[in-house]
Amino acid sequence: MTEKQGTALKEGIGLVETQYFTFAHPPQQFGLDSGEKLGPITVAYETYGEPDEDFSNAILVPHAFSGDAHAAGWHEGAAKPGWWDEMIGPGKAFDTDKYFVICSNVLGGCKGTTGPSSINPEAGKPYGIDFPLITIPDMVRVQARLLDHLGIERLLSIAGGSMGGQQVLEWLVSYPERVRSAVVVATAARHSPQQIAFNEVGRQAILADPNWKNGKYYDGEPPVKGLSVARMIGHITYMSDASMAKKFGRRTGENGKAHPFANGFEVEDYLHYRGLSFVDRFDANSYLYITKAIDDYDAARGGNLSDVFRSLEAKLLILSFKSDWLYPSYQSLDIVRACKRAGVDVSYCEIHSTYGHDAFLLEIDEQTTLVSHFLKKVFGGGKGR
Amino acid sequence: MTEKQGTALKEGIGLVETQYFTFAHPPQQFGLDSGEKLGPITVAYETYGEPDEDFSNAILVPHAFSGDAHAAGWHEGAAKPGWWDEMIGPGKAFDTDKYFVICSNVLGGCKGTTGPSSINPEAGKPYGIDFPLITIPDMVRVQARLLDHLGIERLLSIAGGSMGGQQVLEWLVSYPERVRSAVVVATAARHSPQQIAFNEVGRQAILADPNWKNGKYYDGEPPVKGLSVARMIGHITYMSDASMAKKFGRRTGENGKAHPFANGFEVEDYLHYRGLSFVDRFDANSYLYITKAIDDYDAARGGNLSDVFRSLEAKLLILSFKSDWLYPSYQSLDIVRACKRAGVDVSYCEIHSTYGHDAFLLEIDEQTTLVSHFLKKVFGGGKGR
Repeated sequence: MTEKQGTALKEGIGLVETQYFTFAHPPQQFGLDSGEKLGPITVAYETYGEPDEDFSNAILVPHAFSGDAHAAGWHEGAAKPGWWDEMIGPGKAFDTDKYFVICSNVLGGCKGTTGPSSINPEAGKPYGIDFPLITIPDMVRVQARLLDHLGIERLLSIAGGSMGGQQVLEWLVSYPERVRSAVVVATAARHSPQQIAFNEVGRQAILADPNWKNGKYYDGEPPVKGLSVARMIGHITYMSDASMAKKFGRRTGENGKAHPFANGFEVEDYLHYRGLSFVDRFDANSYLYITKAIDDYDAARGGNLSDVFRSLEAKLLILSFKSDWLYPSYQSLDIVRACKRAGVDVSYCEIHSTYGHDAFLLEIDEQTTLVSHFLKKVFGGGKGR
Repeated sequence: MTEKQGTALKEGIGLVETQYFTFAHPPQQFGLDSGEKLGPITVAYETYGEPDEDFSNAILVPHAFSGDAHAAGWHEGAAKPGWWDEMIGPGKAFDTDKYFVICSNVLGGCKGTTGPSSINPEAGKPYGIDFPLITIPDMVRVQARLLDHLGIERLLSIAGGSMGGQQVLEWLVSYPERVRSAVVVATAARHSPQQIAFNEVGRQAILADPNWKNGKYYDGEPPVKGLSVARMIGHITYMSDASMAKKFGRRTGENGKAHPFANGFEVEDYLHYRGLSFVDRFDANSYLYITKAIDDYDAARGGNLSDVFRSLEAKLLILSFKSDWLYPSYQSLDIVRACKRAGVDVSYCEIHSTYGHDAFLLEIDEQTTLVSHFLKKVFGGGKGR
């Protein structure tokens, strides 16, 4: 155990383990939006804090595109904690002394929940692109099955950023009666053509890699270069012009040039590092399936968002970040406007930040204040009403 | 001849042909910034309008990254005119009834000027990556040799956008005595890490393509997929969120889905089309060499731009576009500030546009007014002073 981990364990949640729930065993397979059936489905999830006897303190935290079920605490021997550890723990925004927090890996993912890299029981080998197409609503219905399994009827809150925010919106639309409040961070009710374009170029980079082999690469070399290029594009969009200027400027790195046509700038080295390290932890087919689901998603089902919001009972807190150009504030304001039109109880705050879209993982102080006050107001003295 | 071309020929410059100038025949080779020597060098160029007897009406128009010597008029049988045809011609911003306009393909390019796809006379086959590394100042020194050849000592003006603007800045710094005025459009004195990052991902996409073969692909299949992905990234950065929303929205195209993980959105089809059509007209190695030169360039040589601007005698007009997030207005304002500090005569205008960086090719009316008034002021009654 490192010293850093030791200190963090004392202050935070401590060691955690991912748990698994499997359902939809054939012939009771799970029906997808595509009309196809899938099963069995395993869901990887983690929980933090203790539930009240009636789960009135339960908060679901859906993850962003490349996230996983490990939102907080430490895995044995890990070099860093879960992806939203700074927000989840004793005394933190999602205070585990009060709340019971659940996070699960999405359907189609590659971190424990069934996805294209899982074994297709009929074939005895990974699904690859035989995995059925999935949608954000499919992901949410799988999460609902997990909550059924845990015995949670109604959530105190649901909170997520980016693709996590899309899932939050979908929970509100699909299960309005199961959600008392929601925190919607740096997201969009539907992707703009610019957002679709960035994802599409990432998909093209993967498909262009001869190692992709129509998705059948699991017994050989995966499409490392294509996936790496896709991730590099992603990282540019997660940062801001200002945050890159501050972090890198035009400084040259110590590693020399990554290739003859690089100039040896630190920003070039950073992209290579980020691209290559992503390949170790993410599956290229999951990249394809999940980005397609994100681009396809429209919370308003092609109509007006205010119409699908009319049955909402939840209170909403909507947050965006000033320098986030991937999910610009106007997209959050579109959601706010729909809430107002539908008579939904909504608060909105644009947080000043130079971190770009990454701010939802980095601007902890401001988010902590806003989220903890919001949850306190909803939770009140405890017990669901 | 199409009807469109027929009308355009009557209104515009008419048919034009690219000309060629070759110099630096061994052993009088051309010295590059890298210390290497190169020769012979052929320069492809075009001219429009008639020169005064002392060339006091000569205007050089350097092109942007993927441009060429064909800035205006029509090539025999072509489907469209030169890249800045709307700005160059009788009665246009660069009025060929008054001015003599020159445009040449850059060193390292692939449209007639010597570059990596040219035959290396020593090897009897294309240079590939044996072509020496080049810089923006190298490109400008080659242009200066072309002007020497044409007998032009001093330019009435030099005008360019994007990488063309970098060449304009370099002309001002390297040859202050040869430039009476300059129009600097949508450019930067040096690239930010975000700009470098986008180019670097494009380079990585090309290098990731197995058909790149360390640059030796000229006798086989070129790295079509890698170059295509690189170009798709470029096109996203040339447009704006607003212009993409207007042009595509979330409409689906008529061509179905380009691949199983596309959603059939028009914006996806547009990117494929743009990526694949680029491959027909551009060389992947030129992409590598030129983007490296762009990223490396710093008009201020690592110091203050105002210091290198002190010897300037030229009047400057600097233009940027409100929605251009690839070359944001603050980069143009940095150049304006340096001019003011150095006592240079400078005017600046931020043009309202939703076209993003593409605006320098599309916002014709506003640019025409500003540029033609500026040139009239500099040219006065004619004849250089």
